[in-house]
Amino acid sequence: MTEDSQSSDFVKLREVIRIFVAERDWDQFHTPKNLSAALCVEAAELLEHFQWLKTGNKDELNEAKFEQVRHEMADVLVYLVRLADKLDVDLIAAVDEKMEINRAKYPAEKVRGDARKYSEY
Amino acid sequence: MTEDSQSSDFVKLREVIRIFVAERDWDQFHTPKNLSAALCVEAAELLEHFQWLKTGNKDELNEAKFEQVRHEMADVLVYLVRLADKLDVDLIAAVDEKMEINRAKYPAEKVRGDARKYSEY
Amino acid sequence: MTEDSQSSDFVKLREVIRIFVAERDWDQFHTPKNLSAALCVEAAELLEHFQWLKTGNKDELNEAKFEQVRHEMADVLVYLVRLADKLDVDLIAAVDEKMEINRAKYPAEKVRGDARKYSEY
Amino acid sequence: MTEDSQSSDFVKLREVIRIFVAERDWDQFHTPKNLSAALCVEAAELLEHFQWLKTGNKDELNEAKFEQVRHEMADVLVYLVRLADKLDVDLIAAVDEKMEINRAKYPAEKVRGDARKYSEY
Repeated sequence: MTEDSQSSDFVKLREVIRIFVAERDWDQFHTPKNLSAALCVEAAELLEHFQWLKTGNKDELNEAKFEQVRHEMADVLVYLVRLADKLDVDLIAAVDEKMEINRAKYPAEKVRGDARKYSEY
Repeated sequence: MTEDSQSSDFVKLREVIRIFVAERDWDQFHTPKNLSAALCVEAAELLEHFQWLKTGNKDELNEAKFEQVRHEMADVLVYLVRLADKLDVDLIAAVDEKMEINRAKYPAEKVRGDARKYSEY
Repeated sequence: MTEDSQSSDFVKLREVIRIFVAERDWDQFHTPKNLSAALCVEAAELLEHFQWLKTGNKDELNEAKFEQVRHEMADVLVYLVRLADKLDVDLIAAVDEKMEINRAKYPAEKVRGDARKYSEY
Repeated sequence: MTEDSQSSDFVKLREVIRIFVAERDWDQFHTPKNLSAALCVEAAELLEHFQWLKTGNKDELNEAKFEQVRHEMADVLVYLVRLADKLDVDLIAAVDEKMEINRAKYPAEKVRGDARKYSEY
């Protein structure tokens, strides 16, 4: 890993989380299976804030709710970064790969303004 | 926003996703509500790979499955970054805030080796 | 258990699922933890059909999509009944109990037309 | 609908829920999209109880936790029955159909003791 990537956002997050986990001796619980379950739970807690709203745009969120939303988003990111750490996944590289696939699956000229899944075309 | 944060991982991801979305005219579907639902769906697709495994450690994943796992992780990150964009959330700052709360909720000396939720203590 | 409850919908479903599982020797995978993960995955697959739609009402679903929706609903029910079987939960009794709690948490005269969570009042 | 099915578990549940919703004027929030999001959230709350446990078997659950688990299962069932009501889905018939498909997808002699998804064979 280059010096540059050592200073990346994701590397910094990974280190902060590693310390938090080590101080609590929680690594024993952090199997990829458990982390992916926890990630799913946090994503659902985020969704819970929006489930009865029209759009969830900022004008529908009061300050207290917006803070909770930000914290649920943080939880999602923390578990994702932790899972990436346990599985040695480079998240930036994974997104690069996946976006390439998405560009091929959903050619702009074909899907413009249409939200169907590629298998429905 | 400083020049420095403009070059951060999250800003770069945000820009790549913005372009992808604009080319497809998909912004109209990207309400926070819809994005949080999509995030939840991707998190569950990630969990699906692990649900019948013992731990999900790398030695339980063959190459094809590991690639799918990486791509699901990418999808989670893409929707999270997109949601942060729509709600003007600084993900790094949100994690900083939330980790501070977690440190207070789960004091290391109290919770060491114990995975119960703080409300169960 | 009375003769009557033996003939209930839930008992019949439980028996059909037990046979399906036994024929495949899948009971070994059916821990409550794994089943609740599988339930969550199926619920998300159901949500996926609705995530970009306005309301998901029947007029927004074509026949193929509606069939998929019905089948995802079936999957949710199957895992729920299986989980109830493994934990000896009487689902009807659980709903009776929970509805009683809901009636107390959300008094009709107080919450009419308001979808906030009780903790937000 | 026959007199018999009118007295089925699912019909009774549907009626109890209809009354609860009508008393609160909550039908306006109950689009299939919103209900499937709520179902997903409840399924994740159920999973949350199991995420750090080994198996989630009853001997790992104390009485308080077991009660919460039962109530989350009730919530899942309530939203599923409500969604079925809004989309005119007969849940029993849907399970019959889906189990038939599952039997074809996963022939007992082929998958015995193997939890892979049919697409992985």
